Amino acid sequence: MTLNVGVIGVGMIGQEHIRRLTNVLAGARIVAVSDADAARAREVAARTPGAKTYATGEELIAAAAVAAVVVTSWGPTHAAYVLAALQAGKPVFCEKPLATTRADGSAILDAEAALGRRLVQVGFMRRFDAQYRALEATIASGAIGAPLIFNSVHRNPSMPGHFVSEMALNDTAVHDIDISRFLLGDEPVAVTVKSPRRNSRGPFEDPLFTLMEMRLGALVTIETSVNIAYGYDIRGEVVGETGVATLAERNPIVVRSQGAFSGRVPADWRERFNDAFDAEFREWLAAAAEGSAAGPSAWDGYVATTTSEAALEALRSGERVEIRLREKPALYG
Amino acid sequence: MTLNVGVIGVGMIGQEHIRRLTNVLAGARIVAVSDADAARAREVAARTPGAKTYATGEELIAAAAVAAVVVTSWGPTHAAYVLAALQAGKPVFCEKPLATTRADGSAILDAEAALGRRLVQVGFMRRFDAQYRALEATIASGAIGAPLIFNSVHRNPSMPGHFVSEMALNDTAVHDIDISRFLLGDEPVAVTVKSPRRNSRGPFEDPLFTLMEMRLGALVTIETSVNIAYGYDIRGEVVGETGVATLAERNPIVVRSQGAFSGRVPADWRERFNDAFDAEFREWLAAAAEGSAAGPSAWDGYVATTTSEAALEALRSGERVEIRLREKPALYG
Amino acid sequence: MTLNVGVIGVGMIGQEHIRRLTNVLAGARIVAVSDADAARAREVAARTPGAKTYATGEELIAAAAVAAVVVTSWGPTHAAYVLAALQAGKPVFCEKPLATTRADGSAILDAEAALGRRLVQVGFMRRFDAQYRALEATIASGAIGAPLIFNSVHRNPSMPGHFVSEMALNDTAVHDIDISRFLLGDEPVAVTVKSPRRNSRGPFEDPLFTLMEMRLGALVTIETSVNIAYGYDIRGEVVGETGVATLAERNPIVVRSQGAFSGRVPADWRERFNDAFDAEFREWLAAAAEGSAAGPSAWDGYVATTTSEAALEALRSGERVEIRLREKPALYG
Amino acid sequence: MTLNVGVIGVGMIGQEHIRRLTNVLAGARIVAVSDADAARAREVAARTPGAKTYATGEELIAAAAVAAVVVTSWGPTHAAYVLAALQAGKPVFCEKPLATTRADGSAILDAEAALGRRLVQVGFMRRFDAQYRALEATIASGAIGAPLIFNSVHRNPSMPGHFVSEMALNDTAVHDIDISRFLLGDEPVAVTVKSPRRNSRGPFEDPLFTLMEMRLGALVTIETSVNIAYGYDIRGEVVGETGVATLAERNPIVVRSQGAFSGRVPADWRERFNDAFDAEFREWLAAAAEGSAAGPSAWDGYVATTTSEAALEALRSGERVEIRLREKPALYG
Repeated sequence: MTLNVGVIGVGMIGQEHIRRLTNVLAGARIVAVSDADAARAREVAARTPGAKTYATGEELIAAAAVAAVVVTSWGPTHAAYVLAALQAGKPVFCEKPLATTRADGSAILDAEAALGRRLVQVGFMRRFDAQYRALEATIASGAIGAPLIFNSVHRNPSMPGHFVSEMALNDTAVHDIDISRFLLGDEPVAVTVKSPRRNSRGPFEDPLFTLMEMRLGALVTIETSVNIAYGYDIRGEVVGETGVATLAERNPIVVRSQGAFSGRVPADWRERFNDAFDAEFREWLAAAAEGSAAGPSAWDGYVATTTSEAALEALRSGERVEIRLREKPALYG
Repeated sequence: MTLNVGVIGVGMIGQEHIRRLTNVLAGARIVAVSDADAARAREVAARTPGAKTYATGEELIAAAAVAAVVVTSWGPTHAAYVLAALQAGKPVFCEKPLATTRADGSAILDAEAALGRRLVQVGFMRRFDAQYRALEATIASGAIGAPLIFNSVHRNPSMPGHFVSEMALNDTAVHDIDISRFLLGDEPVAVTVKSPRRNSRGPFEDPLFTLMEMRLGALVTIETSVNIAYGYDIRGEVVGETGVATLAERNPIVVRSQGAFSGRVPADWRERFNDAFDAEFREWLAAAAEGSAAGPSAWDGYVATTTSEAALEALRSGERVEIRLREKPALYG
Repeated sequence: MTLNVGVIGVGMIGQEHIRRLTNVLAGARIVAVSDADAARAREVAARTPGAKTYATGEELIAAAAVAAVVVTSWGPTHAAYVLAALQAGKPVFCEKPLATTRADGSAILDAEAALGRRLVQVGFMRRFDAQYRALEATIASGAIGAPLIFNSVHRNPSMPGHFVSEMALNDTAVHDIDISRFLLGDEPVAVTVKSPRRNSRGPFEDPLFTLMEMRLGALVTIETSVNIAYGYDIRGEVVGETGVATLAERNPIVVRSQGAFSGRVPADWRERFNDAFDAEFREWLAAAAEGSAAGPSAWDGYVATTTSEAALEALRSGERVEIRLREKPALYG
Repeated sequence: MTLNVGVIGVGMIGQEHIRRLTNVLAGARIVAVSDADAARAREVAARTPGAKTYATGEELIAAAAVAAVVVTSWGPTHAAYVLAALQAGKPVFCEKPLATTRADGSAILDAEAALGRRLVQVGFMRRFDAQYRALEATIASGAIGAPLIFNSVHRNPSMPGHFVSEMALNDTAVHDIDISRFLLGDEPVAVTVKSPRRNSRGPFEDPLFTLMEMRLGALVTIETSVNIAYGYDIRGEVVGETGVATLAERNPIVVRSQGAFSGRVPADWRERFNDAFDAEFREWLAAAAEGSAAGPSAWDGYVATTTSEAALEALRSGERVEIRLREKPALYG
């Protein structure tokens, strides 16, 4: 009943997932790790009872001891590992991005479709967040009528030194792009990016305001403010034909002091999405134990990559850019 | 269509009412003022075009030019002026307390009942507050079932130097006592006062926690915290058989900054009840113009005085004190 | 101290203003009315003690008895009346639109500038709303840093039969356009209008999503959903460099019942902006009594007209349309 | 690293804990079950891979395979099992009540104190709830000054057929009693119970209003409304010298529809405290693995029993009842 998991790439996020699979959730055992930095791999293995170090991700994937794979290495390496896992017939959890080029994403779709069953789960953790699930359930219930507009707001207090404007689209907004598709049950057809007055706190274009048009006509707006100081604030609102549904404040207590009442804004993504990560891996473990995958699929990863590519082009050109998706393999429903 | 008003007692609250009747509301003209401090009366009259000074409240009440009277003098003088106004057959608005003894309150009831029509309105402005009115309407609608408990919270940031513990009952909680009766449509039968751990900020017993039992059995709890620093905070919650209704936050905007979202708590009673005072006098003017009175009656003033007297005894004795009301004259329904 | 006011156009909104100036606010007397429908003018005058009927707006403006003018006639007639009032040197309150063409608006600017002092106040009541004022004060305080994005949401439950899509811009969004300028202290330079998936409840394009670019680079987004069933909902959020300020819920009580807590959304503009209308006219009366005007000026009216003209063109063309404002007369600061 | 756990009493709550320890949390394995109903024990064991059935709780405790014990049997049996576990030197998690008489509770204190280390953890899950922890941290931070009043509200939508009024004190309010001590860091000295107007929905006294006085003088009020229809609503507010801290709404999304905005109230204790139960057992597993216990101790269980006994007497007598606690063994700090 315990799944033997190998982890490729044991940097910050990889170690976080190891901690979760080891100390928090029932049903998993870390049996293998690998990393481009061999010393780091050894170090992490030493702290993880039962974990063996593998020289390469490919060897780890091939190892008989490994029943399922977690890919948390550097983004551009993801696609190759996922393809290898598919070839080995092993369930694979891949952090976003699934692929950094449309071509790579498409190759994964072909491989999985050829296999005829899902093995790939992409790390869009918002789909497991209780608030987004309630939002989705409300839309599905008809309580607000057909959805016409979705406003998604993604705010970070600050960004590390290597941050560049483009990352606000392919690293930040990519979560908003995916959750839009989840909530609206629809695919994007075009994207425009506006660059408002620049926040003087940063050396990069910020905020960005992205408009995404969906097939059924719904409009998605995405504000990315990645240097806004006050907190990590994820907000979302669906405007329907007869009503509106909005993510509520997440805050444990209200304090009345010095002329004000106040509540807490999360400090970072760990605080905000900790429970969603738990749920994400809980569902992955359950699915992987049966040789399958849950939640966001390779198709979702492919669309996210294709859309953020288009958004980058829209930012550079200042024009509306159409999004051309390949045909969706039947496997993805 | 314009009502000629005389004001007895032109201290802070009297001047505030003059301002309101002169500059804010349609339908009134201040034609007379009087004050124990004759110099102050002259000063205020000088700033109020059309206002004449009278040596005593009794002369003001008797003056032909005065069609209606506002009593905002020192509390212990209220009853005599109200009785004089009743004798003169003139509508009178009297700030709380209507009377400082049950006997005086009772005398007013007799006089007004003998007259056979209401001329007295007591300054319990909460009854004109939009939030309390919504609370009352919700109870009346049956949306929460029969009311079983009413929790009333009355918090002041600080008190002036002459404040003594007793005032938390007969000056502060008296508003909560009155609004309880308004909301529950019922009369008090007994009162108990608890004196919790003392706030070290003040030289007096604070907070106090008053329990008031109503005829139909509903329990009223009143927290008075008169030295709580953070703001002027009036809260109320009615617990019914199937639901609960609560006064909402009053706050214009939510600010997200420095790790928190926050809103404003009112600084003082002027900010909190400004609109209620407007409505109170608007309704008084309309009623007085027709030789009548609106809202809280002499009976309400009598019960408030009787109940806060009982609460004082309960505080001193530490015992539950029964409240014995005289029979209610038919005039008060 | 009482201002003699004449009202041109006594339909629904004109009558509402007469009621307010007569029964609610201190300091005004309605002495004159006129209307394209003479019978209606006579009817309203009959119900308004002291009011005389005039055959035309021009005669009303010229009448010696009239000290200040309120224009609430049909939109296309506004400009001519305002010009006449300017010529007569009388303070004039004009409901929006100030003018239905840029040329007319510009003519008013010239006339008032030539006069050398403000006499015109335009009916953008939001500028007197306590919530918008708190929003403006928060921006001015620096608490959220320089404003970068303003999201304005304007939702109506339904529209009358004669409604056409264009009105969502020049009748509805015009309020959002004006308040954006007030909050940001800046002028628009370009506008784009997106037409999302159409609400199936209506026979017109709805919702519309307008993007307005400001001189300093701030981006304004305006959602107009004029047929959204659930209520009249005005929302606004300013995103700054270090924080965010948002209009709070307006709701008197929270009810807990049947598995939910809930509060009220205003039913219509009267409920939502009643207090703002009071404040608007209170400030107008004070200014007009001194031969001046308060709040939104003819320049504000001119920019609103010019911008909504551009928005209409943007809707029709699907293109970004630049807004070319004439030079601002020194009178307007 | 995996703890071998035996569960005594596998009714609803026992099965819920088995599920949690098996499917949700890392670090435990259910190896033994027993139940007064032997058939039920076999049934549950059959569904729990690796679990063996024991005829009695005592045999289960004594079994070498069992490293730690969970007691979820009928309340009156708890004390004997806890004493047996102490004798066996095995960590034991005991659902409340620790004991149904003060004498039994006291015997446990003696046994554990003699042992010289904590092995007992009592199931007051609120102490692991993120909201109560934030409340406690805010008090400790000094942000609201010394705590003077704590208002605790405990509402259930309805009660099963066997419910009697007393249970509102020893089964329901016992949680509020315990969390008051946790938040205030203080012990109760006296208790009074008021029985307000009776909810006509039920055949028992409801609601009850309990006043608990603490050693340092803080006042605790506990409303238990166990038949209030609208939901499972746990509320709490600490009034300090300079501020107030309140449990916030727990609700994922706000829906605007049909004239209202609304959010969800939890349906039952499972929904409300699911995460707290997870945290409670996560901390228990960590402590038990080291032969210790976390969170609420036998002393906490003893005080809860003693206080609810006093509350029952207060309800029956209508009088204020003093609470006489034995001396606190040094083990409990």
